[in-house]
Amino acid sequence: MASKEIPYKIYLEENEMPTQWYNVRADMKNKPAPLLNPGTLQPMTAQELGGVFCDELVAQELDNDTAYIDIPDEIRDFYKMYRPSPLVRAYCLEKKLGTPAKIYYKFEGNNTSGSHKLNSAIAQAYYAKKQGLKGVTTETGAGQWGTALSMACSYLDLDCKVYMVKCSYEQKPFRREVMRTYGASVTPSPSMETNIGKKMNADHPGTTGSLGCAISEAVEVATSLEGYRYVLGSVLNQVLLHQSVIGLEAKAALDKYGIKPDIIIGCAGGGSNLGGLMSPFMGEKLRGEADYEFIAVEPSSCPSLTRGKFAYDFCDTGMVCPLAKMYTLGSNYIPAPNHAGGLRYHGMSPVVSQLYADGYMRAVSVKQTDVFAAAEQFARVEGILPAPESSHAIKVAIDEALKCKETGEEKTILFGLTGTGYFDMYAYEAFHNGTMECYLPTDEEIAESLAKLPQV
Amino acid sequence: MASKEIPYKIYLEENEMPTQWYNVRADMKNKPAPLLNPGTLQPMTAQELGGVFCDELVAQELDNDTAYIDIPDEIRDFYKMYRPSPLVRAYCLEKKLGTPAKIYYKFEGNNTSGSHKLNSAIAQAYYAKKQGLKGVTTETGAGQWGTALSMACSYLDLDCKVYMVKCSYEQKPFRREVMRTYGASVTPSPSMETNIGKKMNADHPGTTGSLGCAISEAVEVATSLEGYRYVLGSVLNQVLLHQSVIGLEAKAALDKYGIKPDIIIGCAGGGSNLGGLMSPFMGEKLRGEADYEFIAVEPSSCPSLTRGKFAYDFCDTGMVCPLAKMYTLGSNYIPAPNHAGGLRYHGMSPVVSQLYADGYMRAVSVKQTDVFAAAEQFARVEGILPAPESSHAIKVAIDEALKCKETGEEKTILFGLTGTGYFDMYAYEAFHNGTMECYLPTDEEIAESLAKLPQV
Repeated sequence: MASKEIPYKIYLEENEMPTQWYNVRADMKNKPAPLLNPGTLQPMTAQELGGVFCDELVAQELDNDTAYIDIPDEIRDFYKMYRPSPLVRAYCLEKKLGTPAKIYYKFEGNNTSGSHKLNSAIAQAYYAKKQGLKGVTTETGAGQWGTALSMACSYLDLDCKVYMVKCSYEQKPFRREVMRTYGASVTPSPSMETNIGKKMNADHPGTTGSLGCAISEAVEVATSLEGYRYVLGSVLNQVLLHQSVIGLEAKAALDKYGIKPDIIIGCAGGGSNLGGLMSPFMGEKLRGEADYEFIAVEPSSCPSLTRGKFAYDFCDTGMVCPLAKMYTLGSNYIPAPNHAGGLRYHGMSPVVSQLYADGYMRAVSVKQTDVFAAAEQFARVEGILPAPESSHAIKVAIDEALKCKETGEEKTILFGLTGTGYFDMYAYEAFHNGTMECYLPTDEEIAESLAKLPQV
Repeated sequence: MASKEIPYKIYLEENEMPTQWYNVRADMKNKPAPLLNPGTLQPMTAQELGGVFCDELVAQELDNDTAYIDIPDEIRDFYKMYRPSPLVRAYCLEKKLGTPAKIYYKFEGNNTSGSHKLNSAIAQAYYAKKQGLKGVTTETGAGQWGTALSMACSYLDLDCKVYMVKCSYEQKPFRREVMRTYGASVTPSPSMETNIGKKMNADHPGTTGSLGCAISEAVEVATSLEGYRYVLGSVLNQVLLHQSVIGLEAKAALDKYGIKPDIIIGCAGGGSNLGGLMSPFMGEKLRGEADYEFIAVEPSSCPSLTRGKFAYDFCDTGMVCPLAKMYTLGSNYIPAPNHAGGLRYHGMSPVVSQLYADGYMRAVSVKQTDVFAAAEQFARVEGILPAPESSHAIKVAIDEALKCKETGEEKTILFGLTGTGYFDMYAYEAFHNGTMECYLPTDEEIAESLAKLPQV
């Protein structure tokens, strides 16, 4: 098999696409810690979670044992519209770098949401529809998740209410219009439609909002409107489950050509992309069947894995959502303005956090200007204009490939290219103009935020 | 073969991709009329053309006889980065429309330039590089062509100077930044760098520029700088030759499943997409081997085929370029602001024009608001946010599918989805807000413009 010539892009046939998601928790010796009720500090029950999330998603959230879960036919049909995503051999990048390393990337940007978020959005929307709900609510910052959810809801004829952080709403009118094209209602947060929004506007006149507030508004609306539930695009176990489709496809494509990666790299904000990409490979490692090196890449401005603490913390800054045990910088931590909006989250998926704590992977943080230099280098030889988030993984993939150039090792590197940067051109412009800033939080800042972690 | 289940997306294997372009002129009984020297009104010689274009491209421009021309390996390698493009079965759209028609579209938007323009950009850049040139110049309006050329030049390490119509330069900073990411120099036109630019700025202080002026600037720079040539993204015979890769791939994908389209639909501005998509099918029709119905779709605000005249005219408003025999509204015609920037051209490819004049295809014009309604309907069920240009073809494909619904005919419809609309959200916003205008030129306006056609 290994002698077959490897094309630039490996596509699976439709009948080779995964029919089940893989739940890496089933193979973890130390399971991720349960979510806690913010009032009682006791593990959230299915009933409690059912007030916020759809029943089937609650079951997936709590299921630490079932290794494979069927992907319903309706979701598989939707996947067929934009999947399989290509596994690309980065021949041109390898040549440019002059490295003996073999570089592959799984490209998730070839859909209108522009990222991997659609993989979980359709699943969450599907279960909401199946439960007979009228609609779902969510928050969005940079807009990828809101766009993905709008697309999924439009397809299923489900109402979609998006609370978009006000500064993004005003600065990213294009993202907003894409969501409107898909029929979603997009409300700048804080709004005057919710109690928490009214309070925020009264307490902080002229505020431009925050993700924490937008989450709280979306949850308030979901729990107060008949027939609505709240959905979230990252962090949760269920999201990582859905995103396993990335890794399953990547692995199937590599297996077709007898290729085994040595290093697997993903950017990590809430952990949905990295968690999804690495899951089947991590499963083999957990079961002792194979070994891989996993690298999580985070921005140096928001370094939850590399400089945070593994502890229970609130998932939202409003502190109304359950607590999760995760690597966190503290729910009070306000990441410096960093153009990779999708990585500006104070915490990390409990699954990724547990695996990191148990030594199954390593993490590195990278500076924003270095990330954009890598993005530009990549764009020029591989043709794809990457999202700032994805470019974190590109930066480290290039670093690893250059190490191979020094040592002469022919390592095989796989990284996740989560999306495209078409809606991030202000950031590229700042980079071109030399006005991009790299904020590095001080130890004192992080310590101050961590000192406020809840006592659990 | 026909009984095989047809997937949502048909991808060719790398070894099934075309190795030659198809030159439809070889099968045309009435060849497209030659370009004329604007000074002498005599057919342009290869030598005359060689002052503006690369030698190899001049040869392709003048070759009306060779049916198949090899695609150089270097270009095929580049094609492999983003091709084959998927041929998509629009199952979801068919279901939504309730039509017995089978709808396919060839999607050219899955590359960073966001359109099919890259197919010719890499070819033109390659021949420039091969000739030992330092760089190329071009103009761009909406920005797709400039982006595509920037990508191709970056890949080949060739300098790229883009003259971007000033109003677009200011209104579309994102497009500009994408080009800068690929290392192109982007100059707002009229500039103070050229004689024609200086004159325009002096004669019309505060002018926001025009495509005609940008062309003239790009040509002036190409012909005055050592080692530079000018390149153009549409209209020319050579461009249609390169774009035949669209149709060749589409036909190969359909042939694999034994599918024969009844109707082939493309949007038509300068004609590069439609000409490319239809070429191998048109070849069969010209040779009497098969019959197809071809439909060119143009905006009602710029209806060169449906309301223009088949005559010699200038290709640019500055009247410095050669004259082409084509359907034209007159080089003085100023199309009303229409968001489908790629279709705002006063003339039409000489090849497409000749085929239309000879009765091999028909043309329809559609209103902009109807186009955006179709675009939104398509986006919601097929997931892809289409470019305004491409949406002209969507509109007519939907119309034809609905006719089938009435008659019960199970026609097979193929249309070209040339690109994505990520950089056209202002237009979508105007549509959502109900402020989009549909300009219909009066007969008097068109007659007045046509009265000024050159006497050849």
